Amino acid sequence: MPRRNTEKMFDMAKLRQTAEKCDNWGRWGPDDEAGTLNFIAPEDIVAAAGLIKKGKVFSLALNFDNQGPQVGLWGNRFNPIHTMLATGTDAIAGIQDENGIRYADDMVSLPLQCGTQWDALGHIFLDDKMWNGYDAALVDSNGAKKNGIEKVKDKMVGRGVLLDIARHLGIESLDEGMAITIDDLDGCADAQGVEIRRGDFVLVRTGMMEQRQRDGWGGYAGGDAPGLAFETAEWIHQREIAAICCDTWGCEVRPNETEDAQQPWHWVVIPKIGISMGEIFVMGKLAEDCADDGVWEFFFCAPPLPVTGGVGSPLNPIAIK
Amino acid sequence: MPRRNTEKMFDMAKLRQTAEKCDNWGRWGPDDEAGTLNFIAPEDIVAAAGLIKKGKVFSLALNFDNQGPQVGLWGNRFNPIHTMLATGTDAIAGIQDENGIRYADDMVSLPLQCGTQWDALGHIFLDDKMWNGYDAALVDSNGAKKNGIEKVKDKMVGRGVLLDIARHLGIESLDEGMAITIDDLDGCADAQGVEIRRGDFVLVRTGMMEQRQRDGWGGYAGGDAPGLAFETAEWIHQREIAAICCDTWGCEVRPNETEDAQQPWHWVVIPKIGISMGEIFVMGKLAEDCADDGVWEFFFCAPPLPVTGGVGSPLNPIAIK
Amino acid sequence: MPRRNTEKMFDMAKLRQTAEKCDNWGRWGPDDEAGTLNFIAPEDIVAAAGLIKKGKVFSLALNFDNQGPQVGLWGNRFNPIHTMLATGTDAIAGIQDENGIRYADDMVSLPLQCGTQWDALGHIFLDDKMWNGYDAALVDSNGAKKNGIEKVKDKMVGRGVLLDIARHLGIESLDEGMAITIDDLDGCADAQGVEIRRGDFVLVRTGMMEQRQRDGWGGYAGGDAPGLAFETAEWIHQREIAAICCDTWGCEVRPNETEDAQQPWHWVVIPKIGISMGEIFVMGKLAEDCADDGVWEFFFCAPPLPVTGGVGSPLNPIAIK
Amino acid sequence: MPRRNTEKMFDMAKLRQTAEKCDNWGRWGPDDEAGTLNFIAPEDIVAAAGLIKKGKVFSLALNFDNQGPQVGLWGNRFNPIHTMLATGTDAIAGIQDENGIRYADDMVSLPLQCGTQWDALGHIFLDDKMWNGYDAALVDSNGAKKNGIEKVKDKMVGRGVLLDIARHLGIESLDEGMAITIDDLDGCADAQGVEIRRGDFVLVRTGMMEQRQRDGWGGYAGGDAPGLAFETAEWIHQREIAAICCDTWGCEVRPNETEDAQQPWHWVVIPKIGISMGEIFVMGKLAEDCADDGVWEFFFCAPPLPVTGGVGSPLNPIAIK
Repeated sequence: MPRRNTEKMFDMAKLRQTAEKCDNWGRWGPDDEAGTLNFIAPEDIVAAAGLIKKGKVFSLALNFDNQGPQVGLWGNRFNPIHTMLATGTDAIAGIQDENGIRYADDMVSLPLQCGTQWDALGHIFLDDKMWNGYDAALVDSNGAKKNGIEKVKDKMVGRGVLLDIARHLGIESLDEGMAITIDDLDGCADAQGVEIRRGDFVLVRTGMMEQRQRDGWGGYAGGDAPGLAFETAEWIHQREIAAICCDTWGCEVRPNETEDAQQPWHWVVIPKIGISMGEIFVMGKLAEDCADDGVWEFFFCAPPLPVTGGVGSPLNPIAIK
Repeated sequence: MPRRNTEKMFDMAKLRQTAEKCDNWGRWGPDDEAGTLNFIAPEDIVAAAGLIKKGKVFSLALNFDNQGPQVGLWGNRFNPIHTMLATGTDAIAGIQDENGIRYADDMVSLPLQCGTQWDALGHIFLDDKMWNGYDAALVDSNGAKKNGIEKVKDKMVGRGVLLDIARHLGIESLDEGMAITIDDLDGCADAQGVEIRRGDFVLVRTGMMEQRQRDGWGGYAGGDAPGLAFETAEWIHQREIAAICCDTWGCEVRPNETEDAQQPWHWVVIPKIGISMGEIFVMGKLAEDCADDGVWEFFFCAPPLPVTGGVGSPLNPIAIK
Repeated sequence: MPRRNTEKMFDMAKLRQTAEKCDNWGRWGPDDEAGTLNFIAPEDIVAAAGLIKKGKVFSLALNFDNQGPQVGLWGNRFNPIHTMLATGTDAIAGIQDENGIRYADDMVSLPLQCGTQWDALGHIFLDDKMWNGYDAALVDSNGAKKNGIEKVKDKMVGRGVLLDIARHLGIESLDEGMAITIDDLDGCADAQGVEIRRGDFVLVRTGMMEQRQRDGWGGYAGGDAPGLAFETAEWIHQREIAAICCDTWGCEVRPNETEDAQQPWHWVVIPKIGISMGEIFVMGKLAEDCADDGVWEFFFCAPPLPVTGGVGSPLNPIAIK
Repeated sequence: MPRRNTEKMFDMAKLRQTAEKCDNWGRWGPDDEAGTLNFIAPEDIVAAAGLIKKGKVFSLALNFDNQGPQVGLWGNRFNPIHTMLATGTDAIAGIQDENGIRYADDMVSLPLQCGTQWDALGHIFLDDKMWNGYDAALVDSNGAKKNGIEKVKDKMVGRGVLLDIARHLGIESLDEGMAITIDDLDGCADAQGVEIRRGDFVLVRTGMMEQRQRDGWGGYAGGDAPGLAFETAEWIHQREIAAICCDTWGCEVRPNETEDAQQPWHWVVIPKIGISMGEIFVMGKLAEDCADDGVWEFFFCAPPLPVTGGVGSPLNPIAIK
C-alpha cells in the first residue's frame, strides 16, 4: 500500500548518495545522448511485436487544445493555442477561388511539456551538469545542443508494461501525496502476473488522469499528486528499464518527500540515470483492456516530435495489443 | 517511366468525373470522420506486426526547426519557431535555485503542415463540402468541428509499403514536373516484388527530399515537384489503400496537369476518397535498407499529434522492420 | 446617476432604428477607412498642443504580460506570452562571445485585444457589412483588407477629455450592470467644467480598472461590467467625437440591455458610426491629476501598433498635460 | 562627408577607453532604469508642444507584417505572424450568430525588435553588466527584472530633431559601410539651421529605408548598412540627448569599424551612456516635409508597448509639426 509521505523523509545528503548510486554517466560512451533507451535491443523490439495479438490500438494522448491542464502553476507553461491560417468559411466565401483550390490550414503554439509529453534528457540538471556529464550551459536560448529530444527520434519503440496501481489497490485514484514505493511496483507486477524486463517502457497508472478528466483539472499540472517515491529511483536503475511513464504531470509524488529540493527524484533519474520520462499519459482505456484480458504487456511506439534542441516533446503514444 | 506532364492534360469536366467515380461518401456511415483508414482491419495490424523481423526502427521525420523547407510560397506557412521558457544558462546563473530545481523548458510555434505531416480530412474542400459530405463551414476560426486530425489519433497503424520510384528508375531523384502514373506504381511494385493490399500505408519516394537536403530547399515547399499523376486517384480508390505518403510537400505533380485547378488530385483524393495524406516524409534510409534486404514492406506506426480541430498534424512516422 | 439596466430595455427593432439614425456610411466618401477620426482637423491638433502646460506625461496602458485580465471568457483571447530569444544568462555563460556581442532579445505572442487596445473599424460587423459598407468577407484568415488598424496609424492624435464618472458620483467604482446614460455623460462634463467638442477623444472612467487591479481581475475581461448605455450611441453620433475610450474591457454595460443581441452598442457604433474604440485603458493617475488641478482636458497621442490587416491593436496611450 | 570605414579603425583598448569616458552609471541614482531619458525636463515637453504649428502628424512606423525586413541574419528574429481568431468569413457563414454578435479578432507573434522598435536598456551588456551596473543575469528566460522597456512607458515624449544626412549630402541614400561622423552630425545640423539640445530625440536619416522599400530588403536587417561612426558615442554623451533613432536596423555603421567586437558602438551607448535607441524608423515623409518648410524640429511622442521585462519594443513613433 502506498504510504503518505512526509516532507522530511530525507535530506540532500541522501539525495546525493542516491544520485551517485544511480550514476550511468559514461555507460554508453562519452558521446551518448540516449541514456537508458540504449537498453532496448533489436531482439526486444522483435519480441515486443509478438505482443500484437488482437490488432487493438490505444492512443495514450490527451488532445492538445486550450482545455488542457495548464493553469499557470509551473513556470511559464500554457495550454496549446491553435489558430487557423485558412478556413472553410474563407473557402465558401469564395476568397480562395482565385488560387484554384479550397482549403484550410492551421498552426499551433504550445509548450513542449504542456500535455502528453516526453521529458528530454536535457530537461533537468544536477548542479551544472545534465545527462552524461554535459554542461548545463549547452542548453541556452537557442535550445539544447546536447540531449535534445531529436536525438532519440527513432528510439521510442519496444515492449510496454502497464502497472495499474490504482486498480491493484482497488481504488479509482490514488490521492495527492500518496507515494508509490518499490514494494508497490513489485507487488502490482506480481499481482498482475507480469514481469518487468530490461529495456521495458514501464507505464505507471495512478488513476489521477481519469479522476481529473471527470472532476476538473484543478492543480493537476504543477500541484500535488500521487506518484513515485524517491526510493524508486534505485528500482529504475537496477531494473534497467528504458523509460518510465505516468498519468500525472510529473511522475513523482507531491508534496515531495523532502523540503530541501523540489522534485528530488527528477534530480536523479534524468541527469544521472539518463531515463526518458513520459508524463500526462492517458491510460484508462488501455488499463480496462488489460484488466479484461489479463495481459499487461503490449507493443509500445511513442515517437517524439523531433523539435531540434527540444528539452521535451508533445506526442501521441501508441500501445498495441 | 514517368512522363513529363503538360498543363493541359485534362479539364474540370474530367476532374469532376473522376471525383464522382472515386466517391466514398457514406461508405462508412454518415458520421464517419476516418475515411480510408477504415480499411485497416485488426487482423491487418496483427499481420503487419509479423513484418518486424530485424528490430530495426526508422524515423521518417524531418527535424522541426527554423531550417525547414518553408520559404513563403504557400499561404502563411513558416518554419517552426522554437523558444525557451527556461535554460541551462539560467540554471547555472543560480536564478532557479530559490525554486529548488534546475531545469530547462521550451515551446514551439509551427504550422501543422510546415514539415513532416498528415493532411487531415478537413484540409481540402470540394466546392462547399469536405470528406463525407460535411459542410466546409464546419472548419472555421475555431478549427475543424468535423474531420479534425484528433479523430484518427489511434488509427495510423498498419502495414507500410515503400515504392521507391527513383531507385526503380535508377535515378537519384525525379525532376520537377515528372508525373508518376498508375503504370509506374504497378511497375515499381512488381519490380520490387511487393504487393499493394487493402488497408496499406503506401509510401512513394521520388528522391526529391534527399536531393534538396543536399542542394538546398529552394522551392521545395510550395513550388514545382515530381509527384503522382492525376490518374492515380483512381488507382488509390480501387486499391483501397489506407493512406498515401510522399517525400514531397504535396504528393502530386507540379506544375499540375491542368490549368483549371490548383492541386486537382487533392480536390478528389481528400474530400471524395477520404484518404489521409502524408507529406514531407524522409524515406532515404528506409529505402536503402529495403534495397539491401529486398523487403519493401514493414510495420508502420505514424501517430498524429492530436491537436483538437487540426486540419493537419506534424508527426514522427515510424517504420519498423 | 447611472441606472441599473434590465436586459429587456429594447429589442432588435430599436437596435436597427438606432443603427439607421447613426449611419455615417459614405460621409467621408466611399473609400474611407478612418470613420470619425476624420472629425479631427489640423487646427484641433494645434489647439490641443496648447493643453500641454505642465509637461506631465501619463501612460494609460496596462503592462503586457501573463498577469493580464484574460481568463478565457471571450473567444480565444489569452494573456501575452513573452519569451526570450537571447538572455543575459546566456551572455554571462560566454555562449555569445564567439559573435562578439552580449545581448538579450525577445518576442511576444498576444491577441491584439488582450489588454489596452484599439478596436479597429474591421472588428465588428452589422449583418454582412462593416464600417462604410464594406463586405465582412474582406476580413478573412489573411486579415482585414479594409478597415485594418494600419489605416489609421497617423490619426490617433488630438484633444483628450476625461469624464470621471466614478469620481463624479463620489464612488470608487461603478458596479457591474450600471449603465452610464447620456445624462450621466453631460452631467459629468458639466460638473467637471469641461466641454465635449467635435473631434475629441473622450475617455470615460468607471473606476473598475483600479478596483480590479486591487481585488483581482475575476471576470473583468469578457464578463459583466459597468459601461455606456445603448442610448449613448446617439450622443456619440451627435457630438461628432473622434473616439471613445473606457477603463473596461468593452466600454458598454454588461449584462447588455437586450437579450436579443450581444454587445448591441457595438453593433451600432463601430459599423455604422465608424468610431474607434479604446478599451482597458488605465486612467487612475490621470484622473487624480485632473481632480487636483481641475483640468480635465489634455493632449492625447495614442498611436496603434500598425499590424497590417489588424482588427485591433495593443497600444500605450499617452495623455499629456 | 561620411567616410568609408575600415574594419581596423580601433581596438578593444579604445572601445573600453570610450566606454569609461561615456560612463553615466549612478548619474541618476543606483535605482535608475531610464538612463538619458532623464534629461527630458517637464519644461522641455511644454516647449516641444510649441512646435506643433501645422497640426500635421507623421507615423514613423513600418507596418508590422510578414513582408518585414527579417530574413534570418540576426539571431532568431522573424517577421510578424498575424493570425485571426475570428473572421468576417466566419461571421457571414452564420457561425457566430448563436453568440449574438458578428466580429473579427486576431493575434500576432513577433520579435520585439523585428521592425520599428526601441532597444530597451536591458538589450545590450558590457561584460557581465547592463545599464547602471545591473547584473546581466537579471535578464533571464523570464525577461528583464531591471531595465525592461515597461520602465520607460511614460518617458518617450519630447522634442524631436531630424538630421537628414542623405539629403544634406544630396544623395538618395548612404551606401553600406559609410560611417557618419561627429562632423557629419554637426555639419548637417548647421546646414539645416537646427540646434541639438539636451533632452532631444535625435533622428538620423541615411535614406536606406526608402531605398530598400523600393529595391527589396536584401540584408537590410542584420547585414551591412550606413550608420553612426563609433566616435559618435562621445558626441551623444556630451550633447546629453535623450535618445537616438535611425532608419537602419542597428543605427551604427556596418561592417563595424573594428574586427574585435560586433556592434562596438552598442557596447558603449546602451550599457554605459544609458541611451534608448530607436531603429527601423521610417522618416521619408517627415524629411520631405522638413525640407519643404525648413523646420527640422517637431513634437515627438513614441510610446513603447510596455511588455513587462521586454528588452525591446515594437512601436509607432509619432512626429507632429
